[in-house]
Amino acid sequence: MKKSVLVLLFSIFLMYSCANTSSEEKPQKTDTKPVNNIGLVIHGGAGTILKKNMTPAMEAEYEAMLEKAAKKGYEILQNGGSSLDAVEQTIHILENSPLFNAGKGAVFANNGKNELDASIMEGKNLNAGAIAGVTNLKHPISAARKVMENSDHVLLARKGAEEFAAAQGLEVVDTSYFFTEKRYKSLERAKKNDADKKAAYLDPYIKDYKYGTVGCVALDKNGNLAAGTSTGGMTNKKWNRIGDSPIIGAGTYANNKTCAVSGTGHGEYFIRANVAYDISALMEYKNMSLQEAAKEVIQNKLKNMGGDGGIIAIDAKGNLVAEFNTPGMYRAMVDEKGNVTVGIYSE
Amino acid sequence: MKKSVLVLLFSIFLMYSCANTSSEEKPQKTDTKPVNNIGLVIHGGAGTILKKNMTPAMEAEYEAMLEKAAKKGYEILQNGGSSLDAVEQTIHILENSPLFNAGKGAVFANNGKNELDASIMEGKNLNAGAIAGVTNLKHPISAARKVMENSDHVLLARKGAEEFAAAQGLEVVDTSYFFTEKRYKSLERAKKNDADKKAAYLDPYIKDYKYGTVGCVALDKNGNLAAGTSTGGMTNKKWNRIGDSPIIGAGTYANNKTCAVSGTGHGEYFIRANVAYDISALMEYKNMSLQEAAKEVIQNKLKNMGGDGGIIAIDAKGNLVAEFNTPGMYRAMVDEKGNVTVGIYSE
Repeated sequence: MKKSVLVLLFSIFLMYSCANTSSEEKPQKTDTKPVNNIGLVIHGGAGTILKKNMTPAMEAEYEAMLEKAAKKGYEILQNGGSSLDAVEQTIHILENSPLFNAGKGAVFANNGKNELDASIMEGKNLNAGAIAGVTNLKHPISAARKVMENSDHVLLARKGAEEFAAAQGLEVVDTSYFFTEKRYKSLERAKKNDADKKAAYLDPYIKDYKYGTVGCVALDKNGNLAAGTSTGGMTNKKWNRIGDSPIIGAGTYANNKTCAVSGTGHGEYFIRANVAYDISALMEYKNMSLQEAAKEVIQNKLKNMGGDGGIIAIDAKGNLVAEFNTPGMYRAMVDEKGNVTVGIYSE
Repeated sequence: MKKSVLVLLFSIFLMYSCANTSSEEKPQKTDTKPVNNIGLVIHGGAGTILKKNMTPAMEAEYEAMLEKAAKKGYEILQNGGSSLDAVEQTIHILENSPLFNAGKGAVFANNGKNELDASIMEGKNLNAGAIAGVTNLKHPISAARKVMENSDHVLLARKGAEEFAAAQGLEVVDTSYFFTEKRYKSLERAKKNDADKKAAYLDPYIKDYKYGTVGCVALDKNGNLAAGTSTGGMTNKKWNRIGDSPIIGAGTYANNKTCAVSGTGHGEYFIRANVAYDISALMEYKNMSLQEAAKEVIQNKLKNMGGDGGIIAIDAKGNLVAEFNTPGMYRAMVDEKGNVTVGIYSE
C-alpha cells in the first residue's frame, strides 16, 4: 500500500504540475537591466543569390562591406552605446554602399525615381517611426528615427516625410545622388521585358528584383533591443507601392520582452503574414525560443502562403538568428565576444 | 498491488495527457464550409462621445445611419453574398454619409485636403489590399479591394493609388466632393489653436479629432470572414501622416482560423501594438475566446501603452464583439437572426 500511496502522491504532483504548465505565464522582462550578452545581426537582402552567379571578387566585396557594417554596430554596443544608435549607424554604412538596395544603390521605381522606405523600433517602450516613398533623403533610417522621436506619428509618406525630415535638419540630397548605373539598367531591362522576373534574373548583383533591403537588430548593455530596416523596394514598382519595410509588425519589430526582427523578402507576403510581430507573438504566447519562432514563421507559415524571404533577429538573451527560405541572404552576426560571422548562401 | 498498478497506469495516463496538452494545437479551420451563423458588426469611430454633448436629434441621426448600414450588409449575407461584398457595400453607406470621418465627411489635413486611407482583408486566403492618402476617390474601400484583387501589391499610396484606382474604373470625384462645412471649421479651429485637442473638443459631432473612422467585419454563409476600414485620419494631420487604418495587422485583419477585426482610435498606438493581428494571435496561440482576446488587447495592452480607441470583431463561429476604452464608439451589430443592436456610449 505504501508504494500505491507514493504513486498516488506522484500522480497528484503530476496533475498539479500539468495544470501549472498550461496556465503558466512566461516571465516578462519589461524593465531593463545591464547585460553582458550584447549582440547584433544585419542583413543586406535575401533572394535568389547563387554561388554560380557570383565572382570571387563580388563575394569578397559583399563580405567586406557586411563585416564593416557589423563591426561598426558592435563597436557602438561595446562602448556602451544604445542599440538604437547601433542600428542607425550600421544601416548608414549599408545605405551608403551601392551594393545594397537601400540609400545609394536603391532600385528605381517605374517613374525613374528612387522611392525609399525605412522604419525603426525600440524594444523598451515599443516606440516606432517610419517613412515611405521619400526620394531625397540620404539616410532614410535616420528620417524614421526622427519621426519616432520628434513627431506624434509613426508613419509619414512621400513629400510630407521629406519636408518633416528636412525641417529636422537631416541631409537632403539631389535625387541624382541615388543614381547607379547597374540599378538603372535593371529598370530598363524590367521595362523592356514585361516579365519583371526575367529582367531581375539578369541583374548581376541580386538575382531577384524583389528582395534587396538592408536591416539591423541589436541588443545593448542596458538590455534594450532595437530593429531597423531600409530599402528601395522593388525595381520598376508602380503606383507608389509601399512594401513591408516601413510597416511596423511586418518588416520591423522590437520588444524587450521577446526579440527584435528585421525582414527582407517579398514584402506583400510579409505584410499579410505580419512576419516580424508574429515571431514575437510566438515567443510571448507559445513560449517558443527565438529560433523556433523564426523557423515556424519563415519556413512554415510564410512559405505555405508562397512568400519568399528571410529575417534576422536577436532576443533579450542575445541569441542571434538569421532564417530565410531563399537560396541566399546577405548577412552578418556579431556575438557578445565580438566574433563576426558573415554569410551569403544557405549552404 | 493491483490498486498500485491502477494508480501507476493513471499517473502514466496523466503524464501523457499533460504532455499532449502542452504541445496540443488548436484545431485550425482552414477550409470553408457552410454555416448558419452569419453576422456583421460595424463601427463609425470611437472617441470622447458623451451624451451631454449630443442632442436627441443627432443621436437619432447616427443611430438611423448605423442601422441602415448594418442592415444593408446583413441583407447581402442573408442572400448568400460574400462577407467581402457585405463589408464593401456596408462601408459605402458609411463613406457616403457626412456623419462619419470617411469618404464624404472626412476630416481635413493641414494642407486643406481630405487624405483618405482604407484597407480590406479576406479571411479565407489572407489576401489584403490598402490605399493611403488618396484625395479624389469616392470610395476608398473599393480602391483597397481593387488593390487586393487586381494588383500584385497590398499597399499603394497617394497619386499612384489614385492612378491605379482610376485605371480600374473606380469613381473619381473632384476633391471638392469631400468638402463639408463642419469638418472645415474643425480644421480652422485646429489651426487657430495650436492645441489640437481643444479644437477637436469643440467639434459638435466627434469630440475627439483623432478617432473618426468607419469599419465593418462580417461572416458569410460559406464561413468566410472579412474586415474593412476606411478613414480620413486626423484633423489637421501634417506631413502625409498614415495611421493604422490602411495597415494590415494594425487597423484591419481577417483570418478564417480566428476572427475579423476593424479598429478605430489613436492610430499610432494601434500600429505599435499590432492591435488587429494581436487579437487573432491571442486566439490562435493562447486559445482565448474572441471576447477575451479583444478585452486583453483593448483594455489592457493598448490602455497600458496610453492608446485610446476600440475595435469591432467577429469570429468564425459568429460571435460578435465591440470593445473600446473610450467613452463612446458608434457601432451596430447584426446577429444570425437579423437582430440589430445599435450603440453609441459605453453605458
